[in-house]
Amino acid sequence: MAESHKVRVGIIGATAYTSREAIRLLMGHPQAELAVLCSRRDPQPRIDEVFPEFSGRLDMRCEPIDPDALKDRIDVALLCLPNGIAMQHVPAMLGHGIRAIDFSADYRLKEPADYEQWYNKPHTDLENLRDAVYGLPELYRERLSTARLVANPGCYPTSAALAIVPLLRAGLVEPTDIIVDAASGISGAGAEPKPEHHFPERHETFEAYNVGKHRHMVEIERTLDPYLRERKTSVIFTPHLVPMERGILSTVYLKPVQPISIEHVMQVFVESYEGEPFVRVRERLPRTNEVARTNYCDLAARVVKSRIVVLSAIDNMVKGASGQAIQNLNVMFGIDEKAGLR
Amino acid sequence: MAESHKVRVGIIGATAYTSREAIRLLMGHPQAELAVLCSRRDPQPRIDEVFPEFSGRLDMRCEPIDPDALKDRIDVALLCLPNGIAMQHVPAMLGHGIRAIDFSADYRLKEPADYEQWYNKPHTDLENLRDAVYGLPELYRERLSTARLVANPGCYPTSAALAIVPLLRAGLVEPTDIIVDAASGISGAGAEPKPEHHFPERHETFEAYNVGKHRHMVEIERTLDPYLRERKTSVIFTPHLVPMERGILSTVYLKPVQPISIEHVMQVFVESYEGEPFVRVRERLPRTNEVARTNYCDLAARVVKSRIVVLSAIDNMVKGASGQAIQNLNVMFGIDEKAGLR
Amino acid sequence: MAESHKVRVGIIGATAYTSREAIRLLMGHPQAELAVLCSRRDPQPRIDEVFPEFSGRLDMRCEPIDPDALKDRIDVALLCLPNGIAMQHVPAMLGHGIRAIDFSADYRLKEPADYEQWYNKPHTDLENLRDAVYGLPELYRERLSTARLVANPGCYPTSAALAIVPLLRAGLVEPTDIIVDAASGISGAGAEPKPEHHFPERHETFEAYNVGKHRHMVEIERTLDPYLRERKTSVIFTPHLVPMERGILSTVYLKPVQPISIEHVMQVFVESYEGEPFVRVRERLPRTNEVARTNYCDLAARVVKSRIVVLSAIDNMVKGASGQAIQNLNVMFGIDEKAGLR
Amino acid sequence: MAESHKVRVGIIGATAYTSREAIRLLMGHPQAELAVLCSRRDPQPRIDEVFPEFSGRLDMRCEPIDPDALKDRIDVALLCLPNGIAMQHVPAMLGHGIRAIDFSADYRLKEPADYEQWYNKPHTDLENLRDAVYGLPELYRERLSTARLVANPGCYPTSAALAIVPLLRAGLVEPTDIIVDAASGISGAGAEPKPEHHFPERHETFEAYNVGKHRHMVEIERTLDPYLRERKTSVIFTPHLVPMERGILSTVYLKPVQPISIEHVMQVFVESYEGEPFVRVRERLPRTNEVARTNYCDLAARVVKSRIVVLSAIDNMVKGASGQAIQNLNVMFGIDEKAGLR
Repeated sequence: MAESHKVRVGIIGATAYTSREAIRLLMGHPQAELAVLCSRRDPQPRIDEVFPEFSGRLDMRCEPIDPDALKDRIDVALLCLPNGIAMQHVPAMLGHGIRAIDFSADYRLKEPADYEQWYNKPHTDLENLRDAVYGLPELYRERLSTARLVANPGCYPTSAALAIVPLLRAGLVEPTDIIVDAASGISGAGAEPKPEHHFPERHETFEAYNVGKHRHMVEIERTLDPYLRERKTSVIFTPHLVPMERGILSTVYLKPVQPISIEHVMQVFVESYEGEPFVRVRERLPRTNEVARTNYCDLAARVVKSRIVVLSAIDNMVKGASGQAIQNLNVMFGIDEKAGLR
Repeated sequence: MAESHKVRVGIIGATAYTSREAIRLLMGHPQAELAVLCSRRDPQPRIDEVFPEFSGRLDMRCEPIDPDALKDRIDVALLCLPNGIAMQHVPAMLGHGIRAIDFSADYRLKEPADYEQWYNKPHTDLENLRDAVYGLPELYRERLSTARLVANPGCYPTSAALAIVPLLRAGLVEPTDIIVDAASGISGAGAEPKPEHHFPERHETFEAYNVGKHRHMVEIERTLDPYLRERKTSVIFTPHLVPMERGILSTVYLKPVQPISIEHVMQVFVESYEGEPFVRVRERLPRTNEVARTNYCDLAARVVKSRIVVLSAIDNMVKGASGQAIQNLNVMFGIDEKAGLR
Repeated sequence: MAESHKVRVGIIGATAYTSREAIRLLMGHPQAELAVLCSRRDPQPRIDEVFPEFSGRLDMRCEPIDPDALKDRIDVALLCLPNGIAMQHVPAMLGHGIRAIDFSADYRLKEPADYEQWYNKPHTDLENLRDAVYGLPELYRERLSTARLVANPGCYPTSAALAIVPLLRAGLVEPTDIIVDAASGISGAGAEPKPEHHFPERHETFEAYNVGKHRHMVEIERTLDPYLRERKTSVIFTPHLVPMERGILSTVYLKPVQPISIEHVMQVFVESYEGEPFVRVRERLPRTNEVARTNYCDLAARVVKSRIVVLSAIDNMVKGASGQAIQNLNVMFGIDEKAGLR
Repeated sequence: MAESHKVRVGIIGATAYTSREAIRLLMGHPQAELAVLCSRRDPQPRIDEVFPEFSGRLDMRCEPIDPDALKDRIDVALLCLPNGIAMQHVPAMLGHGIRAIDFSADYRLKEPADYEQWYNKPHTDLENLRDAVYGLPELYRERLSTARLVANPGCYPTSAALAIVPLLRAGLVEPTDIIVDAASGISGAGAEPKPEHHFPERHETFEAYNVGKHRHMVEIERTLDPYLRERKTSVIFTPHLVPMERGILSTVYLKPVQPISIEHVMQVFVESYEGEPFVRVRERLPRTNEVARTNYCDLAARVVKSRIVVLSAIDNMVKGASGQAIQNLNVMFGIDEKAGLR
């Protein structure tokens, strides 16, 4: 593929941690190129002022977010904007023929009522919400290939859905008795300094947060629901914070509808993910550092008494955000799905 | 209490992390004194060679473990020895009128068959096993006051039992549908260097281990069983490792036998622990660093859909080991239960 | 000493990290009691709202800073206030017969011109500046016993001065060729969250900061100057930040005026600190975790080619701040110098 | 360059941290391919047993170290073997026409007497020692292009030499009054677990080690000596350990031969490294995380009183080891010097 045919990418909201990771990945992507960076800051910073590691490596200054100004300059926009802001810009981008991968939650929940309940605001782009494809290639690869708008999944839902869908889809587990106990590195909290993430407060502590209230709980449920007829799933989700930079481990407790062997469980996982470029089903229990800076999801399972315990590890910034976005981009543009990823 | 009447303490197995913590606590204890340190090393080290922070603060050399040599020199022995070794020494200590607080698992499981199954060896001191008191003062304070032999509880079981007993005892939750998802700092793995705890491997990772196989699973169950009639509990226990030095957080999922309000749950906890010197029932979710280097257990609860989620934080080295031993010692010798503790 | 005669302590500026540490130490002090907490916040917080680890352990609410309201309620004030603010309150406190230990830099530099140059404001309390005693007990114990106002030293100057004074005072090293290369844990940066101390930015990095510009450079020099006749010292000071909570290690490079043996160097240190309760001169190289949460300063030295290299480790929050303040308090009030300290 | 013409690389001693990093880099190298892995283990492990992150990504098993068996299979060997072992294998490799990049110290010191003094054994391959080229491309690029044997530099010497050579070569600083105060992440200590690197001991501490005795001290001096006539440099080197995985920061104190401005210093650096692909001369002080996982060396300088303070940051595993080896490989084989590197 000649230089001139590289996919031209714009990152909208370039000062987020997810943008930093997307930039890092795109700098090594053989068939995509970083064409534009936009931010909401004023004055607009050079990207190496925001992320000094790019000094001497990436000579770009951010520009204001203006969909009109992006027309014909980019093929796809990665929107790394806060919830509620993304959907203000998506319609214009699509209108200019720019495909969009949205990192916010704006296009993840198909029911506007869910969005309003969990995000405390009405949805303002119902038309595109209907057409948006949830960007989990392991579940929606075919639809992603033609999608104009992709809702890039949340980090926790990615790790949870990959752990649950195979068994749920096979009808092997109770859909209303699912517990997802998960733990994330601190980059998941974003780049904004907060008192609870001040180094001396965070360095040597472990805690749960937003117990029963985290917005990813409903996203996990809505991602699972399509695999049921008529019923809806019920998930209890408890996120925790680990004093490390990156990584998510989900420990998922599932109730088999009838007694099941670990061999059967593993067979389901192996068959479900056969040929998947970024899912590794393993005997060994996963550790987050074995997927760090990669797009892999490592899965293992155990049967313990009356439950199946599934362990699922991803890098929250890669498979949980920017790596998955690049994977989606690759599928959307017909590029080798592993291009630019490890 | 005059200086001459201080409780004389011997630490048997003085080079363990739990010993280090016991020494630290005893150095500040107003009514107990560190009289003897014993180790299995040859040659016997000075304690500040093993733990250099005691240099200039504690001028003691370890001596071999010989119960006869301890007669009349100590009132109580803290045994920080491996499972299986402790029960080799306890009978002789008790025979010499030395009370014992055993940090190993040797006297925690009342059924010899449980011990043999989980620790892969027959129990060799059945007589004392029968009389040993499980050293959770919140549950067994009265019996501890006269106990000659105390089985100091495991770290995970301490945090789990304090979270579960009040609701179980009140008959409010299903005894056979209990999930304990817990995470510990690395000091819980002991002082012996291992490849998986080598700093570069451990610094930035999170993982589950011994899923469904950890010996504390049965210890939790046996600690809960006495609160049931005829039935036995069934607990699924999943421990994790957090890249921090100390602290345990248990996230416990309980199933109410009938719908329950969070107010009711909190009332049960508040009433159960009223007057307890080291249990704090709080609205705020616990963080391990808020109990670090203290003997507190912080508890909070939430009702999420069909479950009660209880969060329980302790310092694994203090309330989970040496602090609890000192608390037990205080109860055994009629000292203020908070003496030497925070 | 009877309960009623405990030294009554007020902490002024109770929400700082140094206050937190002072509170922790005073809660275990047998002859001092925490009588008042003052802060500049509005509304005034309970101290366990600011530092939740004190929940159930310390039932106090902060009050506004008003020296008149403190009269007859406290014997000594620990001022944990920003530079420039402390000297606004000290005169009134002293006027009410309250002795003061000031944690800020306001009374550390005897020359008002130094203060103005390095702190960018004129000194407004010259009278008390003249009488203030620099609170390094190893250097000024006698004067501290009668001091009304103590300037509690900076963390870096404490570790550096204890490493340099013995050799400088003995005339063995060049006073104008001193390099202090030091590294501190992040608690030294205070409780205020800042972008550069956001956990994901700080967790895995090491850096120098304020090279040649840190205000502790002049404080080190002024602390050393009195040991010279006529001349002044010249110190090059380079602080670094270590991704840990607490601890300072200073690596000091000194030039001997003539060739010197390591035995001679060690003899000078041993003799200088003989009988000192909180200085440990050791053969072994110091590590910050061996002094963590203690008031010790660990010192070791090596002769390398044409230099003496002195290593000096303290806990920046204890010997570098609040522990030293308690040590000063003990000296001021004729209490055992080790009371409440380890 | 066609697939069939990729440089074929063997890694000899494949279970070291430096090997892990070299593998990671080579997996992304467009013009080199990993052809063989050799180890000294028995039985020979699959590489994903040693480094589980390569599971599903690299399907290779190690084989014994046998230069004869490597003939015609690899173009270049990266030797990640201990000091003294490397020189046992190099002659045979070169004899088979395999070029070699040696990570050990065996070919770094040109004087056999230096080697014997610092490594406590006689050098056994004097012939190749004479011809070996020191693998710092910024200093020896031209000779590297034709080198058969490259001595890959030590991590500390890389960071120190890049900070010192420009000013020394220009005759601007005293060669016998150089202090290198450096700090490294723990990966520099290798993959072997040791008590002092056990996570709970290392997590929250900072210390100097091998003060005045570290073998990199002489390597730094010998790297600098060629820039002097007749005289030799004298360097005082103090390494420290930082509780992080990777990164080295060297803080270098140089004495100008006559007063010098910071502008002049910076001009020398800028001119020295103009066009260098992996050296960034910056106004901003370097942080190790800004070079993490890259091959960059970040340099900044300050003039403080009578000294020039130069700060130099690298990733010890990349520019300090495996990245530099790849850079050397690229130069040796006439590939774009940045290929496979960031």
